[in-house]
Amino acid sequence: MVILGIDPGLAHTGWGVVETRGSACRARAYGCVTTTAGEPIDVRLGRICRTLSEVIEKYGPTELAIESIYFGENTKSAIATAQARGAAIVACSTAGLSVGEYTPMQIKQAVVGTGAADKHQVTYMVRSILALDHDPRPDHAADALAAAVCHANVTRTKNLGQARRVLT
Amino acid sequence: MVILGIDPGLAHTGWGVVETRGSACRARAYGCVTTTAGEPIDVRLGRICRTLSEVIEKYGPTELAIESIYFGENTKSAIATAQARGAAIVACSTAGLSVGEYTPMQIKQAVVGTGAADKHQVTYMVRSILALDHDPRPDHAADALAAAVCHANVTRTKNLGQARRVLT
Repeated sequence: MVILGIDPGLAHTGWGVVETRGSACRARAYGCVTTTAGEPIDVRLGRICRTLSEVIEKYGPTELAIESIYFGENTKSAIATAQARGAAIVACSTAGLSVGEYTPMQIKQAVVGTGAADKHQVTYMVRSILALDHDPRPDHAADALAAAVCHANVTRTKNLGQARRVLT
Repeated sequence: MVILGIDPGLAHTGWGVVETRGSACRARAYGCVTTTAGEPIDVRLGRICRTLSEVIEKYGPTELAIESIYFGENTKSAIATAQARGAAIVACSTAGLSVGEYTPMQIKQAVVGTGAADKHQVTYMVRSILALDHDPRPDHAADALAAAVCHANVTRTKNLGQARRVLT
């Protein structure tokens, strides 16, 4: 299974492609789409959608794992992120990917074992799980890879549950 | 000039196509994309983007007029709207439309003459300005047409200003 993880953001949208084989995960590629505040909103959202469409075309994921939006105190920032999330999901919807949504806490729990993990712990564990020889950078790409690893775990657990039901 | 007005929303995205000739505006078409809460987010956003792409293909607007998002107390609702707005802008960006963003107050001011106008006044004035023989429905479509009328006014005022500078 090939999973595209996305950490959406208007200024920085991290992406990471993870391939699973049994219980093993490896990173195929990762990166970050960057836009600047001085650019018109259509240019920014268009670049996010187009770049992710190119990533999907190149690496052929069939599943999307994406962070849900944290409802913090900064509404303006949440709204900017939500627009980027809309553009990212459109790219995946157009390509027919099935979508898994996870809270930041679920992703940390799946990758580090605790929902209270900090960024360094997430990056460290993503590097370890994917057997990378360096820390994935920037943080947005590491978070996107973490979302993909979380989705891989959730899917494997579901499949194991189904297999158990067939066997019993 | 052909303008696509959009009133974005996850459950209801209103759209309206307005054609301008000199100071006259007329409605070419309008409608509303509806999605339901039970549908997956990729299906909802995909439908919004795809339907607006079909509207652009059919009526050939070159400009987009879209409402900015009101930062009210309901953050959850604003985030849902922002995702729909992202999907809508991607459709317009892909088609190369230039984008005009207006606050709800600017749109009411342009259409009714006061930023404090209510929905009924907006619908009444949209009907009057566009010489429609009935109220445009639903409200989301009326709001989308209002955004397009606002953009037409702003563009005409800018052009008049440029013409005056050339003449003086």
